[in-house]
Amino acid sequence: MDTENKRLLVSVVKELSEDHRSRIRAAAEAHGFDVFITDDRETAKPYLHRAEILFSADPSLPACAPHLRWVCTPYAGIDSFREPGVLRDESILFSNSSGAYGITISEHVIMMILMILRKMEDYHAFRKEKRWKRDLAIRSIHGASAVIIGTGDIGRNIAVRLRAFSPRSIIGVNRSLNNPDNLFDSVVPVSSLHEILGSADLVILSLPKTDATFHMISDAELSLMKDDAVLINVGRGTVIDEAALIRHLNNHRLFAGLDVFETEPLPEESPLWHHARALITPHCSGNMTLKITVDIIIDQFLEDFDRYCNGLPLRYGADVKRGY
Amino acid sequence: MDTENKRLLVSVVKELSEDHRSRIRAAAEAHGFDVFITDDRETAKPYLHRAEILFSADPSLPACAPHLRWVCTPYAGIDSFREPGVLRDESILFSNSSGAYGITISEHVIMMILMILRKMEDYHAFRKEKRWKRDLAIRSIHGASAVIIGTGDIGRNIAVRLRAFSPRSIIGVNRSLNNPDNLFDSVVPVSSLHEILGSADLVILSLPKTDATFHMISDAELSLMKDDAVLINVGRGTVIDEAALIRHLNNHRLFAGLDVFETEPLPEESPLWHHARALITPHCSGNMTLKITVDIIIDQFLEDFDRYCNGLPLRYGADVKRGY
Repeated sequence: MDTENKRLLVSVVKELSEDHRSRIRAAAEAHGFDVFITDDRETAKPYLHRAEILFSADPSLPACAPHLRWVCTPYAGIDSFREPGVLRDESILFSNSSGAYGITISEHVIMMILMILRKMEDYHAFRKEKRWKRDLAIRSIHGASAVIIGTGDIGRNIAVRLRAFSPRSIIGVNRSLNNPDNLFDSVVPVSSLHEILGSADLVILSLPKTDATFHMISDAELSLMKDDAVLINVGRGTVIDEAALIRHLNNHRLFAGLDVFETEPLPEESPLWHHARALITPHCSGNMTLKITVDIIIDQFLEDFDRYCNGLPLRYGADVKRGY
Repeated sequence: MDTENKRLLVSVVKELSEDHRSRIRAAAEAHGFDVFITDDRETAKPYLHRAEILFSADPSLPACAPHLRWVCTPYAGIDSFREPGVLRDESILFSNSSGAYGITISEHVIMMILMILRKMEDYHAFRKEKRWKRDLAIRSIHGASAVIIGTGDIGRNIAVRLRAFSPRSIIGVNRSLNNPDNLFDSVVPVSSLHEILGSADLVILSLPKTDATFHMISDAELSLMKDDAVLINVGRGTVIDEAALIRHLNNHRLFAGLDVFETEPLPEESPLWHHARALITPHCSGNMTLKITVDIIIDQFLEDFDRYCNGLPLRYGADVKRGY
């Protein structure tokens, strides 16, 4: 078999199960593609010189693939592919997997909100000392005003779950002013952010890293928020001016639930590691150890693979320049 | 004013705000009642000898009130009033506040489930050491099979919130076989428990302490459950055979989220304080520091006060003998 003449799909995603790998192999075979699946970028490199399709979140790989026509990343965020030299030119098709993370990240958001409102870090400290202390002042999502900035798959899944806790209102913030499935009580543009932040109990950020989102939440926005508002970030760390946030937390204002940071891993010297007003997790809200997440990633990739082979436009295409 | 001849309502509930106290005073005045409101049982005792209505969770007080006609407890659980000698006789009307706890306890349940499925105790330990470890194997409510044992106000509120996380199914277990608001995919009797436990990912207990619920979950039931099932208890600790549960946990089976225990406060020697497979909280899921909880308690009490004064049966009456 003269495999050198066959079209080649290369997958470098270590989180795939055997079942996921089999599904990719079967689809490739059905469309007359060779396939090379590995966990390791070094192993992949000899194959990349003739790869037509790359399925990987590793931004160092496209540069090794001169014949590449399509890159699909299993991640939602595509900022690492925006760097100069990562993608040869704009003729390379690009898609991401943003639809795969709504379930897991929205669960993380609801958990973080409840842990903050219900003082779980304090209860944890009492537990360590075997102290039976029951009467900490807690709060509820019931009756709270929520603002979700970013109404993509993640923001929408957060809204669905939040609604079941009977908040007073859920306001979405986006650029299109679309209200997907009427999940939001209202949708306002980013330019109206200053008008709505002052009445919010919960402010949830699920935004990509772009020039437009850089430090969208800075001192001015933080200053407008209620003293006891809860700020959650599961998008990209660059959306918040982290130094400004830390100043507010140090001034006994706001509570933060952060899964993403301006610098990751979070530097050892960051006061966020052990701040009493911050609940932090290590960018794990979209953890690919969760089977349903990878199931959806593969579903979407193979749907687009089919479309690609049939000359149709990708359904999950993303705009690298725009950043999402 | 000859107050000695006026009917008297005594309130001994320290969690009431000034606003809540004003509402009780206004209602009492409107119905021609004297009212005495205190935080402290000793202060209350001189007034109890002529009290007609007592609003308190303290089971030592009714015995000091020979003319008592109605006791309302601000708690949901009424087991402490079942003890011999607490209530003079069955002619005393009795009501509880079980409708007030669904919001707060269901939030606690969802939080505990997510914390267990998403390994938050492990992430907490890594955070303490400033370790950026991201790839713990997590699970989701999405696609999970849930069993809620007890479909009162608390169980129903749990079902509403759980549904928004798209579980595969939610089965209710109760005695009436009613399916309130069709919140459950099906409702089965306790006698069918053994048939459904084996396929459950999440088993949630919100049951009162009664003879019928004592050790309802013992070794036989725990043995039927999946190795990695999550067992949540926010009802009464006596529903679980705690020693049997600890044996299963020690055998690396099950995960437990417990807010209630067979002995409270949890004894210092209990292995549950620091068990890797147990997330525990100190019977705080129904914390009366939450304003909405006390708002509803007062709403219900004053609704029944109005009914009482108009000769109507209490709407929130509970059966002390039955236990709920």
